[in-house]
Amino acid sequence: MHIRYKLTFLILFCFRQLATAQNGIVVFQSDFGLKDGAVSAMKGVAMGVSADLKLFDLTHEIPAYDIWEAAYRLHQTVPYYPKGTVFVSVCDPGVGTDRHSVVLLTKSGHYIVTPDNGTLTLIAEHLGIGEIREIDEAVNRLKNSNESYTFHGRDVYAYTAARLASRTITFQQVGSTIRKDVVRLPYQKAEFSNGVLKGNIPALDIQYGNVWTNIPKAMLVQLGSKSGEMLRVQIMHKNETLYDKPIRLVNTFGEAPVGDDVAYINSLLNFSVAVNQGNFSEKYKVFSGADWKVVVSRQP
Amino acid sequence: MHIRYKLTFLILFCFRQLATAQNGIVVFQSDFGLKDGAVSAMKGVAMGVSADLKLFDLTHEIPAYDIWEAAYRLHQTVPYYPKGTVFVSVCDPGVGTDRHSVVLLTKSGHYIVTPDNGTLTLIAEHLGIGEIREIDEAVNRLKNSNESYTFHGRDVYAYTAARLASRTITFQQVGSTIRKDVVRLPYQKAEFSNGVLKGNIPALDIQYGNVWTNIPKAMLVQLGSKSGEMLRVQIMHKNETLYDKPIRLVNTFGEAPVGDDVAYINSLLNFSVAVNQGNFSEKYKVFSGADWKVVVSRQP
Amino acid sequence: MHIRYKLTFLILFCFRQLATAQNGIVVFQSDFGLKDGAVSAMKGVAMGVSADLKLFDLTHEIPAYDIWEAAYRLHQTVPYYPKGTVFVSVCDPGVGTDRHSVVLLTKSGHYIVTPDNGTLTLIAEHLGIGEIREIDEAVNRLKNSNESYTFHGRDVYAYTAARLASRTITFQQVGSTIRKDVVRLPYQKAEFSNGVLKGNIPALDIQYGNVWTNIPKAMLVQLGSKSGEMLRVQIMHKNETLYDKPIRLVNTFGEAPVGDDVAYINSLLNFSVAVNQGNFSEKYKVFSGADWKVVVSRQP
Repeated sequence: MHIRYKLTFLILFCFRQLATAQNGIVVFQSDFGLKDGAVSAMKGVAMGVSADLKLFDLTHEIPAYDIWEAAYRLHQTVPYYPKGTVFVSVCDPGVGTDRHSVVLLTKSGHYIVTPDNGTLTLIAEHLGIGEIREIDEAVNRLKNSNESYTFHGRDVYAYTAARLASRTITFQQVGSTIRKDVVRLPYQKAEFSNGVLKGNIPALDIQYGNVWTNIPKAMLVQLGSKSGEMLRVQIMHKNETLYDKPIRLVNTFGEAPVGDDVAYINSLLNFSVAVNQGNFSEKYKVFSGADWKVVVSRQP
Repeated sequence: MHIRYKLTFLILFCFRQLATAQNGIVVFQSDFGLKDGAVSAMKGVAMGVSADLKLFDLTHEIPAYDIWEAAYRLHQTVPYYPKGTVFVSVCDPGVGTDRHSVVLLTKSGHYIVTPDNGTLTLIAEHLGIGEIREIDEAVNRLKNSNESYTFHGRDVYAYTAARLASRTITFQQVGSTIRKDVVRLPYQKAEFSNGVLKGNIPALDIQYGNVWTNIPKAMLVQLGSKSGEMLRVQIMHKNETLYDKPIRLVNTFGEAPVGDDVAYINSLLNFSVAVNQGNFSEKYKVFSGADWKVVVSRQP
Repeated sequence: MHIRYKLTFLILFCFRQLATAQNGIVVFQSDFGLKDGAVSAMKGVAMGVSADLKLFDLTHEIPAYDIWEAAYRLHQTVPYYPKGTVFVSVCDPGVGTDRHSVVLLTKSGHYIVTPDNGTLTLIAEHLGIGEIREIDEAVNRLKNSNESYTFHGRDVYAYTAARLASRTITFQQVGSTIRKDVVRLPYQKAEFSNGVLKGNIPALDIQYGNVWTNIPKAMLVQLGSKSGEMLRVQIMHKNETLYDKPIRLVNTFGEAPVGDDVAYINSLLNFSVAVNQGNFSEKYKVFSGADWKVVVSRQP
């Protein structure tokens, strides 16, 4: 009996571990750019921890200090990596202040190593908080780096992520679970009422200048709109209206002439607008961030 | 006897398979840029298929919708990877139209996964068509992605490439061989007649502003020109002549003073012109594409 | 006895080999940019040598022909990779001249494959010269590449680095040890005398516009300055003074208001100046290179 219980425990324990077992993949994001050696040094430190790790990049072109964009890029990308992947995000305007360094384990089984400064806003909302551990820098810090005050990205975040991903340390060894929630940035949520959809513009599809909103396809269905139909789309920045036009909802860009404004559901299944083979953002001076609002209704 | 035949068949079959066996390497090209998570999401999907794959980039800075440049960058790079490498190229202005999604197996043993929109023009011409398979999206599509109409790069191309490269599927399982040729973009071929060479400018050596033509070294030999000799080079855009000067053919830039115009054979063994340690393209407003023509003759 | 001696020799020999044994990691740096296929072709060649290699990038955004910056980026990054890593640096304005192609083994156990044109200046100074081998191109050159005169980066440097890193060749097989020192670029060294620190600006922290000097923290200690104290900082370009202000020395940016000029010790433990969450370089038109001088003294 005794042994059987032990075994059951062991199996349950293993199962729980395996559910979120690190898979040896580390994905780096930062606002460092790629012109100097900062990103490469982070990878060198990771290779020094374990040469078996597989290292990838999310993006290093986050605009300097733009925590919102760091949050959005994680939200856009994390779900497409397998469970057990460890992400490092370093957009850290408050480096050296009392902001906390954490590792978030999401309910989906992904790990994110980051300063807890709002970067986790959208990930926590969409993937859920499994457990948060504050990094114990007394243990989880590159040796001989304590004289340097300013490159936490390399000495703490990359180092801890590599040790976690390679199972050099367990998730428990990252540090304590004292923090129960992450810092969250305020922003306009998507809503549907009185036949009108409201939302904001969390990000542009930068390369093409398409405008992505946070209004989900499901709300468009609530509105009763169908592919091929005309919608009225208004875009406001603070109190200024920059766009107010009827625009066709399409399934694919191929349904509209080149140069036409089109509305569509993007790869994240959110309402978006574009100029077919053109740049909506440049044409109408529409950008992204918390100050932007989009209002959608059906044409009468 | 029977068994012997079977064995011979098996050996021949294996040999044929091995000749183009996938090697686990996937190389990504796109016009997505690196500012958002799109490229990274493609790699995440590939890692979800098999964490043993080796993932590389060709470039993601193809100008938006510039199929010609996508074709040229493949041509420039594919031959330097080992046989069995799988390339993904996503420059897809026609996404959602009836353009076909294919995998080309070249005679050189390389696989290219791409919309068949002209991207394969130069690869088909230079490496030869082994076999073309149209991607059966009913089978070769990331699960739970069918609500999304617009990110074929991730859900079909990256996913299919990863499955093919990891031998999760055979080349046969990609889809049918109904298509026998690829879509080809028209462009000015290199030619030699009456002591004059003609060609176009498929691409710039962007970082340095050097101008690369499609005129092969062999044609220069036909012309009878030798290293050290002066050549007359004319460069026309449509009907306008932007450059018409004598210029020295050199083996290496070291043979000419800094700031001099020089003609040389580039790393693809084609005729090229440059300003030594300067930027020819900027200096003379010469760019690349189908509308550009270069005429070369010996100085009298 | 005889056998025992042999064994001892063998063990010593193995130990010596292991001390600098190649670890299968290759890190690429160049001034090629990422818009074309040049960097990718180098990696393809490396994969053709051995698919077990692990390939990383330092940066490919070295300004064209800027040997000083190539030297600085190596200096900034090499020490963070494990011993036995092979670096390739291709910033080669003298390609085709009589500049020599070498592999430097540093005293720290890192290999750098590069044209010997000054690129090794700072690495040699800081990590020390273990041994220099000149690349024997008769042997160490991609097959069928000898018709091409201009892409040494791919055909010689990447190829040799991959063969060395994969132990296809030993370090001895790279070529002869005829060269005993590397080409060194002249630049202003850091110095402390009469209560004044002098140095130059080897590089900017480009993404943020912070200005990094070559004055080490230890010299600041000699000066007697302490965190929180005001310093007088002068920055000169040739004979022109572009900055001359009192500025506070901080441990972390969090100690100063947003928008303030601050002095700090950067991640390389050198004296640096920044605008907190701003761009010092743009604000004061201060850039980097051998012509720049920084003078630091304590406020009276």
